[in-house]
Amino acid sequence: MQSSPLLEHLIENLRCLPGVGSKSAQRMAYHLLQRNRSGGMNLARALTEAMSKIGHCSHCRNFTEEDVCNICNNPRRQNSGLLCVVEMPADIQAIEQTGQFSGRYFVLMGHLSPLDGIGPREIGLDLLQKRLIEESFHEVILATNPTVEGDATANYIAEICRQHNIKVSRIAHGIPVGGELETVDGTTLTHSFLGRRQID
Amino acid sequence: MQSSPLLEHLIENLRCLPGVGSKSAQRMAYHLLQRNRSGGMNLARALTEAMSKIGHCSHCRNFTEEDVCNICNNPRRQNSGLLCVVEMPADIQAIEQTGQFSGRYFVLMGHLSPLDGIGPREIGLDLLQKRLIEESFHEVILATNPTVEGDATANYIAEICRQHNIKVSRIAHGIPVGGELETVDGTTLTHSFLGRRQID
Repeated sequence: MQSSPLLEHLIENLRCLPGVGSKSAQRMAYHLLQRNRSGGMNLARALTEAMSKIGHCSHCRNFTEEDVCNICNNPRRQNSGLLCVVEMPADIQAIEQTGQFSGRYFVLMGHLSPLDGIGPREIGLDLLQKRLIEESFHEVILATNPTVEGDATANYIAEICRQHNIKVSRIAHGIPVGGELETVDGTTLTHSFLGRRQID
Repeated sequence: MQSSPLLEHLIENLRCLPGVGSKSAQRMAYHLLQRNRSGGMNLARALTEAMSKIGHCSHCRNFTEEDVCNICNNPRRQNSGLLCVVEMPADIQAIEQTGQFSGRYFVLMGHLSPLDGIGPREIGLDLLQKRLIEESFHEVILATNPTVEGDATANYIAEICRQHNIKVSRIAHGIPVGGELETVDGTTLTHSFLGRRQID
């Protein structure tokens, strides 16, 4: 039993954060109350602002509070002629952190899943097709997840790109760098054999 | 670079939670935005309410939004005659979860630390002394942390209790249940020898 219903309510609500169970939620609530109330208030404000004001970029569907996100607005990126298609905004974040890609993005916000009623329109393929026509991309890189649905979605988009005569590629699947052969699952190992590259 | 300053601000603010680094903060922010915006809004409200409304019980200094907390208000606990002194509200939580203690509490909100200007008044010992006089406790259990400061604070309070002719005890220190002798540090092992109990 908590000594305070508000405290109990806070602990319960902290559990909506991923990776936070009842023990961590308790620890967080007590930490904020005991040592950092202003931090807690700032977090509440940041949450309210982010949840209510962040929408989607009208070009790439990435998270932004503006009409067009600052990746789409970047002139250097506009000239690269590269478009990377990902499932979720968090994927962009991961790609950006590598510093290896300087083109633009398109976020599907999911993947094709006809059984759940998620078709081409739901993942914004009409908007993607419009961009393929209006803007001049010379390569579309498909970076959907290497799952059955992600692969199916990639194949579907590849077909669209071919119709528009745009070069299309899929990111490589194989053994993670630093990984060990014996610990990798069979499907990944198969992919790494099928995707082998000749050494010149 | 994040696509949105508000998102960046949210990630930064999530790091005030204990055990949350930049990677987890990112994961949390994207999770809330992508999958659970209403959960994020509820969390913001719970945080605001808790941070602004939760104060301290006027009897035991535990967290509560009322004048007197529901542990102090519980008649069964009032009749037990037991008072447990702890450093922080989170300690009460830990003790309550054992279900072994049915008395009342007193929270010091810290420990004596003269060099930091934290004396008897700062940890509420005037209020504790008033309670020892006004209420009839037959035992005070000192459950401050087994640190130099916690021990010094316990000794100081023990002296006050003796002046009021109230029985006073210190919780046992020794080898944690399920622990192994060889992995326990020397001081704890010394405590477990000094605190040995005769087997009848």
